[in-house]
Amino acid sequence: MTIYESSVPQMKKMLLGLDRWLDTAVAYAQKKSFDPNVLLGLRLAPDMYPLVRQIQAACDSAKFTAARLTGKEAPKHPDTEQTIDEIRARIRSCVSYLDTFTAGDFEGAETRKVDLPFLEGKYAVGSDYLSEMGLPNFYFHVSMAYAILRHNGVDLGKIDYIGSLPTQEG
Amino acid sequence: MTIYESSVPQMKKMLLGLDRWLDTAVAYAQKKSFDPNVLLGLRLAPDMYPLVRQIQAACDSAKFTAARLTGKEAPKHPDTEQTIDEIRARIRSCVSYLDTFTAGDFEGAETRKVDLPFLEGKYAVGSDYLSEMGLPNFYFHVSMAYAILRHNGVDLGKIDYIGSLPTQEG
Repeated sequence: MTIYESSVPQMKKMLLGLDRWLDTAVAYAQKKSFDPNVLLGLRLAPDMYPLVRQIQAACDSAKFTAARLTGKEAPKHPDTEQTIDEIRARIRSCVSYLDTFTAGDFEGAETRKVDLPFLEGKYAVGSDYLSEMGLPNFYFHVSMAYAILRHNGVDLGKIDYIGSLPTQEG
Repeated sequence: MTIYESSVPQMKKMLLGLDRWLDTAVAYAQKKSFDPNVLLGLRLAPDMYPLVRQIQAACDSAKFTAARLTGKEAPKHPDTEQTIDEIRARIRSCVSYLDTFTAGDFEGAETRKVDLPFLEGKYAVGSDYLSEMGLPNFYFHVSMAYAILRHNGVDLGKIDYIGSLPTQEG
């Protein structure tokens, strides 16, 4: 299992799932006659990110994980989204960015020194960074987005979170 | 990065973190003079698992991921925990189980055929199972446990979720 396989395709899959949850959220808002953009401001606790920031953070986590592991510069996003349409465009932009990566870009990523903005003068090794920061942080924000939607009545289930699993007859 | 490194040590680290969150939760309950076991019954939505079941599911997800990837039989747990002390014992039992695994147990795990109880007659390949089911499902339940605690006033932060990151001077 390469570090590419452990990261990019699965983060892309989860982001596309998150995009579908927003379809369900918009349909729910229409059924209940409220502005779906209201959902973006909702939080699980006053000192936790609202939905819009959770989605931005999920996108950033995927973007920075791929960029840092390959030594590339991630594109900037100013975090100005205020509507469901805008945050969906952000998700698509992140998915398109993930699509630019190939398995080859990740050669040497396991042992690459990853500098982190919050760890001045220190670095983490690529494989540690992915396992202990990149993936846990990504799943955290995706899960919080799910939790905010569920907490506010959007009808999602575990299968929407996991998505389809590649299986074979046997 | 081996499939062992991508799974067992990190799941153990997260479960030990979850155990520490319960310390914070108990201290919060004492400060606010309520029975800490009340927290175990709280949910983010009526059709989502309560905290106790989220923790059981996090433990099971770790246990089954390790067992299925190595072709071992996982120990049974009857899901009868009703107190914080009991659920912490469950976490410790799961951590002890994870400690029985060595990197060598995971030889061939990437291509192992993993049978899943909910996929009759089909199997997933080990690496797909870990990336698309084992880890996402594990992080889901750990994150929901965190979300329930935070939603109910327990003072946790992102650093409690991520834990320490192995870094080097550079």
